[in-house]
Amino acid sequence: MAEEQQRRILVAVDEGEESMYALSWCLKNLAFQNSKDTLLLLYVKPPRVTYSAFDGTGYLFSSDITATMERYSQQVADCVLEKAKKLCNNIENVETRVENGDPRDVICQMVQKLGADVLVMGSHGYGLIKRAFLGSVSNHCAQNVKCPVLIVKKPKPTTGET
Amino acid sequence: MAEEQQRRILVAVDEGEESMYALSWCLKNLAFQNSKDTLLLLYVKPPRVTYSAFDGTGYLFSSDITATMERYSQQVADCVLEKAKKLCNNIENVETRVENGDPRDVICQMVQKLGADVLVMGSHGYGLIKRAFLGSVSNHCAQNVKCPVLIVKKPKPTTGET
Repeated sequence: MAEEQQRRILVAVDEGEESMYALSWCLKNLAFQNSKDTLLLLYVKPPRVTYSAFDGTGYLFSSDITATMERYSQQVADCVLEKAKKLCNNIENVETRVENGDPRDVICQMVQKLGADVLVMGSHGYGLIKRAFLGSVSNHCAQNVKCPVLIVKKPKPTTGET
Repeated sequence: MAEEQQRRILVAVDEGEESMYALSWCLKNLAFQNSKDTLLLLYVKPPRVTYSAFDGTGYLFSSDITATMERYSQQVADCVLEKAKKLCNNIENVETRVENGDPRDVICQMVQKLGADVLVMGSHGYGLIKRAFLGSVSNHCAQNVKCPVLIVKKPKPTTGET
């Protein structure tokens, strides 16, 4: 067996199935039960302004709509992290974190801030906002973080995933 | 501990220090001693024509020079794989493989051909030929292989590495 360590494993999760698959793969292949490993589950909420990019119109929503979206966004975050935590039921040290911003930047920042030893993420993401950003989040992170990056693809992507 | 499995772990090695670091990281964090894991060490030799790109002149070498380079290339391959195998002395099942071609394509092909469950590689490479190809090998592989990809950076790159 690989030697037991105190590793800080940061897993970027979103509402896509792929990030949950990435987490499962990590739990099966990388994280050690009964070890001192800490699993850091990070969910990044898109900044409010990017909602306007969803339909490509550049339309700015009224405050009512943005408030509703903000609530919805928080609910999604809670739901995703709850689901992710359930998968980690064999791991003693699990921390969750919600941040706002461009996931590309936020994930890279959090890797450094939280002192992660390895970053785990799906390749496609980033869920609701994947169309709002140019380029791949995982590519960006693989290029910019200093620690090892594990990019996990879901073997059979559901139709419509790109 | 993570459950014991029969995984096929493909590690792309080259003459750069980073790929050896990636292998070490993999051995410490991912591969399991005394398990049924198989470690596949892959070295990709650049196709002969790419040597002409080394100094950017596009100069085509004489057959003497290309023969010398071919021998040198084989020696490098042997040396790299020997070094890599020594690192794996605690792993029972280790296979080595030398292939020719653009590492971006060859690595992706070999992942499929060898039925790898995970691909491990350095982020910078690809050693001697890293300047001969546009774009990052690891980026390309992360995008194109279907299995999880672990990209490992050497924490303190030596001067001159980009």
